[in-house]
Amino acid sequence: MSPSEKPRLLTVGSVALDTIEVGGLVKNRIIGGSANYSAAAALRFAQPLMVGVIGDDYPEAWLELLERRGVDTTGIQREKGESFFWHGRYADDFSSRQSLVTRLGVFEHFNPRLPERYRGAEFIFLANIEPSLQRIVLDQAASPVFVAMDTMPCWIEGMCGEVLDIVRRVDCLLVNDEELAQLTGSSQPFEGLRKIRSMGARTVIVKLGRWGSILHREDTMFWTPAYPVERVVDPTGAGDSFAGAFLGCLAAYGCSSQRDFRRAMLYASAVASFAVESFEPGALLDLTTGEISQRFTFLRELINY
Amino acid sequence: MSPSEKPRLLTVGSVALDTIEVGGLVKNRIIGGSANYSAAAALRFAQPLMVGVIGDDYPEAWLELLERRGVDTTGIQREKGESFFWHGRYADDFSSRQSLVTRLGVFEHFNPRLPERYRGAEFIFLANIEPSLQRIVLDQAASPVFVAMDTMPCWIEGMCGEVLDIVRRVDCLLVNDEELAQLTGSSQPFEGLRKIRSMGARTVIVKLGRWGSILHREDTMFWTPAYPVERVVDPTGAGDSFAGAFLGCLAAYGCSSQRDFRRAMLYASAVASFAVESFEPGALLDLTTGEISQRFTFLRELINY
Repeated sequence: MSPSEKPRLLTVGSVALDTIEVGGLVKNRIIGGSANYSAAAALRFAQPLMVGVIGDDYPEAWLELLERRGVDTTGIQREKGESFFWHGRYADDFSSRQSLVTRLGVFEHFNPRLPERYRGAEFIFLANIEPSLQRIVLDQAASPVFVAMDTMPCWIEGMCGEVLDIVRRVDCLLVNDEELAQLTGSSQPFEGLRKIRSMGARTVIVKLGRWGSILHREDTMFWTPAYPVERVVDPTGAGDSFAGAFLGCLAAYGCSSQRDFRRAMLYASAVASFAVESFEPGALLDLTTGEISQRFTFLRELINY
Repeated sequence: MSPSEKPRLLTVGSVALDTIEVGGLVKNRIIGGSANYSAAAALRFAQPLMVGVIGDDYPEAWLELLERRGVDTTGIQREKGESFFWHGRYADDFSSRQSLVTRLGVFEHFNPRLPERYRGAEFIFLANIEPSLQRIVLDQAASPVFVAMDTMPCWIEGMCGEVLDIVRRVDCLLVNDEELAQLTGSSQPFEGLRKIRSMGARTVIVKLGRWGSILHREDTMFWTPAYPVERVVDPTGAGDSFAGAFLGCLAAYGCSSQRDFRRAMLYASAVASFAVESFEPGALLDLTTGEISQRFTFLRELINY
């Protein structure tokens, strides 16, 4: 398929600069953000359309690279000021991370406007931005086939009602186990899964990092392994990469049967494993179909009974 | 099969009294210990032969119940003094537990002696007791078909060399991710898995609690889901139940092919899920083959692609 024939996946989220401290290394102001990771991860499956905002400090070379590889960046707004900046530090065993600095910069007054040709995007990923921004994007979309959302603890804490309003409008919610507990008030994750579905979530994916992920949809669950990466370099963006590849795969291969969803989970797990093997989302742009398929096959074998 | 026709699984470990604090409840001096949980969990698959020691405070009614249900308790030694006692408290979200009191009592001078008819046991589970005791049991066994061991942080910290000596003598090591990191010095679990195998472990099972477990054997891995229990009452004994059912299943249905091992992982996960739904191992004695099979089938479907 040429890029223009592929189904379109609109991703909206942060287009960030990150300073990352991990395993004794410090990487200053590298490319990060949920829009970047999810778009790059979707590239082998769908035509990514990015929505976000950058300041005048953002490296244009990165955006040019995205465009050359086939990502549509028309929806990235340019504003005067500093780009979204995050400084995070991971525990040595990756069991936790600490946000040392978060500066919203131009993101503070971000008002997402979809370019005309984005409005008909068949697939949409609303990354973990403020629920009001997720709503603004949804309101501009024509009639997407499938919409997934992420969220994060600060929104659940401060505006849980608004988060749940979006949950009810979309097809799929992606959370980690901590966010699930926070959303449902249940420390028992499988009770939490039932609760969040009774609160209106149709399809739920619980992301467990290196222990895989769980899909809950209709009356069934699918337990998805993580690809066993021996040397995690930087876990940043793993969840966004998972989401981008998941939606990209639904877009490319269908999103109606249980098998469609299970296939997308395995592909998402495969692509996310590449994301954690290096800093920045750049490596995702270079992935070949063969490399992704090899890990997909490996993951299938991990659960073959 | 009548009890005497079943293959025999010798389990050696603690026969304990536990005080458990969990979810706002306190249960005083209830039945606990790795030998009890593993033997009870194996009962539907194999003939359990228990080895352990109790003081004069241990409830005889429990031992009589075990005998009536078909567990051989001849190998439980009776000594003057207090039985092994553990007082533990679980975090509300079960993410951690605290040992408040551990009193070895008669366990301090425990010298395991296998009754004559135990020596030919085909399968052996060495629960998380001191490595020197594990060695004493192994030395008395004739020529078991398959031996698995567990361990715990205090032995790895104080006598890592001795733990690894046992690892090299047995067929299978069961650990949680924390113990794996401690044994291998690697905070990256999949690197740790490779390391522990290069240190001489032939088959390794990493237990992840509610997130399932991972089997590593020969060149393959099997990613095993946990049964999604909505209301965990008490996680005590889940790992020992897993081990007992795993070995019992290998004993009952074979232990040569990859499929044999994968089947045993799924059965183990099924049985362990019953263990966490109530206090004490008593409920495991009442499990029917039908109840276990139902969860086994559910788990198969969780990973069906």
